Formats: sequence, C-alpha cells, structure tokens
Amino acid sequence: MEITFLGTGAGIPSKERNVTAIMVNVVQEANQLWLFDCGEATQHQLLHTSLKPRKLNKIFITHLHGDHIFGLPGLLSSRSFLGGNDVLTVYGPTGIKQFIETSLQVSETHLSYPIEFVEFDENGIVCEDQSFIVHAQLLDHNIKSFGFRITEKEKLGELKVDKLKEFGIQPGPIYRQIKENDETKLEDGTILYRKDFLGEPKQGKTISIFGDTRYVPQNAAFIQHSDLLIHEATFACEKESLANEYYHSTTTQAATLAKAGNVKKLLLTHISSRYQQEDSVQLLKEAQRIFPNTSIAHDFYTYRVT
Amino acid sequence: MEITFLGTGAGIPSKERNVTAIMVNVVQEANQLWLFDCGEATQHQLLHTSLKPRKLNKIFITHLHGDHIFGLPGLLSSRSFLGGNDVLTVYGPTGIKQFIETSLQVSETHLSYPIEFVEFDENGIVCEDQSFIVHAQLLDHNIKSFGFRITEKEKLGELKVDKLKEFGIQPGPIYRQIKENDETKLEDGTILYRKDFLGEPKQGKTISIFGDTRYVPQNAAFIQHSDLLIHEATFACEKESLANEYYHSTTTQAATLAKAGNVKKLLLTHISSRYQQEDSVQLLKEAQRIFPNTSIAHDFYTYRVT
Repeated sequence: MEITFLGTGAGIPSKERNVTAIMVNVVQEANQLWLFDCGEATQHQLLHTSLKPRKLNKIFITHLHGDHIFGLPGLLSSRSFLGGNDVLTVYGPTGIKQFIETSLQVSETHLSYPIEFVEFDENGIVCEDQSFIVHAQLLDHNIKSFGFRITEKEKLGELKVDKLKEFGIQPGPIYRQIKENDETKLEDGTILYRKDFLGEPKQGKTISIFGDTRYVPQNAAFIQHSDLLIHEATFACEKESLANEYYHSTTTQAATLAKAGNVKKLLLTHISSRYQQEDSVQLLKEAQRIFPNTSIAHDFYTYRVT
Repeated sequence: MEITFLGTGAGIPSKERNVTAIMVNVVQEANQLWLFDCGEATQHQLLHTSLKPRKLNKIFITHLHGDHIFGLPGLLSSRSFLGGNDVLTVYGPTGIKQFIETSLQVSETHLSYPIEFVEFDENGIVCEDQSFIVHAQLLDHNIKSFGFRITEKEKLGELKVDKLKEFGIQPGPIYRQIKENDETKLEDGTILYRKDFLGEPKQGKTISIFGDTRYVPQNAAFIQHSDLLIHEATFACEKESLANEYYHSTTTQAATLAKAGNVKKLLLTHISSRYQQEDSVQLLKEAQRIFPNTSIAHDFYTYRVT
C-alpha cells in the first residue's frame, strides 16, 4: 500500500496546503485506488501526480464537513469525462448520497459509470472483499466523524517450488492451479493438496486513517498494532484547550494515541493554516518526544507501507 | 470596472486553465466584487490575487453545469470563515438554491452572513441598484444558459467649481450637499438648483458576459454597443460542427457576434483543454480576422474597462 497526501490542511485551503484528501494506492494488492476524503480541488491536485481518476474505485468519507467532501462532485464528473467506466463505491456517513445526488442532478451530470453508496452511522465493517476489510469507528467531533482501519487479509504463502519439482512437477500453468485450489488432480490421477506445497501465510498490512476528532484514549484499541496511523494534528500541543473547544487534536495527543496503540508509524496531517512551513519542525518535535517514529505530511508526500 | 479571469478552461480543469470564474471589480463604482460563475477551486485561485472573498457581494451564475458552480460551497464557506458579514446574493437559474442549500445543510455549514437567492428562468432584469442594472438573456445550450448585460447607470456630471466660486461659494462640505440634492438652501436663504451647477452627465460602461452557448446571430441585439463582450470560444473555427453538436461556439462565431453587436472589445474564454498555450496564437488570429480588437483570456488575465 502506498499513501499519497493530496491535501494536508484544515478548514480552508492555503497556498501551502490544500484541504483533506488521502489516496491509498492498492494497485499492487487489488488493482485499485482508494481515496479517503475529498476536499475541494482534489482533482486539481491529481493533475500533478500520475494517479488516474479512472483507477479510483472506492471513496471513503470520514465526515461530512465541507473541507472533506466539496471536491466530490467535480472529481466524480471528471472521472466520467476521462473515460472511467468501472463501478465506483462511496462509503460515508448518512447524507453523502444526498449531497452527491443533488450536485449531479442540479448540474445535469450524467456519469458514464455506475455509482453505489454505502452509508453508515455507527461502528462496524463498512467494506469487505477478497483482499481487505475496512472497519469504521466513531470518533469525537462536532459532526459524526469516523476513523477507518483498513486490514489487508492474510495472504497465502509462497509455493514450495523445490518440493513440487521433487514430485516431478515442472513450472507452468499447473503451479497457479495448485496455488488457487485446495486440491488439484494430476493427469495420472494423483491428488495434490495445496497445504502440502505452501509456505507460511503472509500477514497483511494494517493502516488506520482518522477523520477530525478530539483525543479519545479508548481509540487506542481500534488502531492497535497498525503499521501506520494517519491522524489529525490541527493544533500545537500548547493549544490543547482550543483543540478541545473545536473538537480537534494536538500534535502530542495524536502521538500519545499512536504510542498507546502500539502502531509502527504515525503521520500527522490536517495542520491548521496558522502554522507556516517553518513551524513544522516544532510541531514534529512535540510529537516525536512522545512517539519518535512520526512524520508530518505535506501535500504530495508519499509513504509506502512495507 | 476591472475584470479578472480566475478560470478560462472548459469542462474540466487543466494545469494551464482552471474551470470558469470571472471576477468583476466594481469597488470604485459600488465598493463591491461581483463574481460570474464559480467553478471548482475558484477560492484557490483567489489565493493568488489581492481579491478578498469578504468583498464579494453578488454572484451571478450563467448556468448550472458543474464546471460553473462546483466551487460555490467552498467559496461561500471560506467567505464566512474569513470574516465576511455582509449579505451575499446569488443570482442564477432555478436549481442553484437547492444545490447551495443542500451542500451547506449536509456539511452542517453555518454561514456568518445572510445569503439571498434570486432564481430566474427567462429573459429580464435580474438585479438593479443605484449604480447598475443587470439583464439576463437566454442563450442556446443543452441546459438553460444565460448571458448577462451589466449596465452602469448614467452618472452625474462634475460640479462646475468655477461657477460656484462666482456665486461666492467656497469649497467644503457644501459642495457635496449641492451635488447630492436637487436643491440646496444656503444660510442667507438663497436656493441653489443642482442642474445649474453640474456638467454633462457621464455615460456608464456596459459589459456583456455570456455563458456557454451555440452561436445565435439574434443575440447581437442584446450586446449592442457593449464596451466589452466576454464570450466562450470552446473550439477553433474548423470545429464548427463539433461546436454545434456540443452546444458551444468557435472563435470565429464569437468574433462574428462581437462585430454584429458593435462592441468595443472581445475577450474569448472557456477554451477547450485540447488547445495548448502554443495554439492560442492561431485561435486569436481566427477571431481577429473578423473582429480585430479581440484578446484571449488566460487565468489571472486582467482587463480594465475605461
């Protein structure tokens, strides 16, 4: 999984940081792009990357505030204009369907692809397929806001090629057949059991992406052992009461959660426009004092979960 | 009146041209900014100018296609965030209110200022105040699309200072009083009539701004003698049948209308992203062959009507 931040600011766009959008590239795992939140001008940001809107198949919305959704109508329209044909699913709190459908209907936009909606209002699984499962967890904001835990499912181990060769089975399409089926019958009638020819299963990766939220210690359980936590840090640590008043978090609160959640890496985003580029060093220091493996995202910052 | 193009592209944003938005600065005439259309990321474009969202008091929408309206929810929200308090009026085809209200309601955006809507579906006056009158004219597009004619009203002539001095009236607040009232009674009981002390009234300026449209020769009457016509030129002259098919105009069609309308200046905008910067010379030549005083707008291009 490779993450690209398309917007890392809070509330309103600035010259330095656009409003929130995070692309998760699971092309290697599932030949798809997944977008988390879609602030205004997300499609403009994409113009400066090699990510193609037609490859986008799932959009997850953490909450319905404008700086997280106002880029949807334009991106959905342009995906159509640019030749996207595959079904696109939007997962988000109840209301997201009304916003998108009204925007498309008023503007008489006719998409070239089917669009599906999965709306939710409480904790639970919002999406599951062969390779991934995505859980949502209600956070603490002044509108229903969710965190997502994206878990890559355990993958089959590698085929034991040497063992297959011992059985006189030479490389070819048969190898794929053996890997994809519990049993494979050879031409001579021999039955091969997959379990005998596979190495240890490979643990999938887990990333947690939070929407806007106050610091809630209990959420450490939800993110436990994630390979990556993406968390908002709207304010510096000294602004804790302001963060609380506006239902946001500080750098140190995010780091405290990351530590308690035993995650491997913390990426901070949703930085208030009151902080300039030169303030980033200080913001980062505050977080690293508590959770050393922290970075602060900037627009177009890319991180690969390995 | 000073015009600043914030977006000059068609349909979808490109690196070179954003989608449509045109700011008309009438600060000198009415201490306001007026915006014509508001494609996505119009507020982002404003960040690169000295134009302030809180100075914006009127937004006119030519038609409801996404590339002309999807920037509205974000701009309206940011105007609130940035301290705008004055009433803002949105003029546009029926449906614009539903789009904006749904966007604000779903995102739980509470504006700090009152917003008013004037929806219309046919030709007529959409707005009139002390200084300006704005007419709308239905064009020919695949959704109801309008052109606007913004007429600055005739302004009072200059005070004849020499004549006032002959009457023994020295410069001071009394001059303003004389200019602003039909009659002014002096301390000695003398009554001065404004008409005796004013020079010739000054003709106001007129600009016409068209939404997306096919070429309709009859619209020459609507734009007649405008100081400026802003017209779409989505396609080069050789693509006339394509323009017709997609309800758009070519460079030469726009120029032909400008000529028949006896306007002083033509500015072309809404240029298809199929044309690169280097194609502009050719597009311009096509139009200038018919109407020499033509320019092609680019993002941030500014033109002052004098």
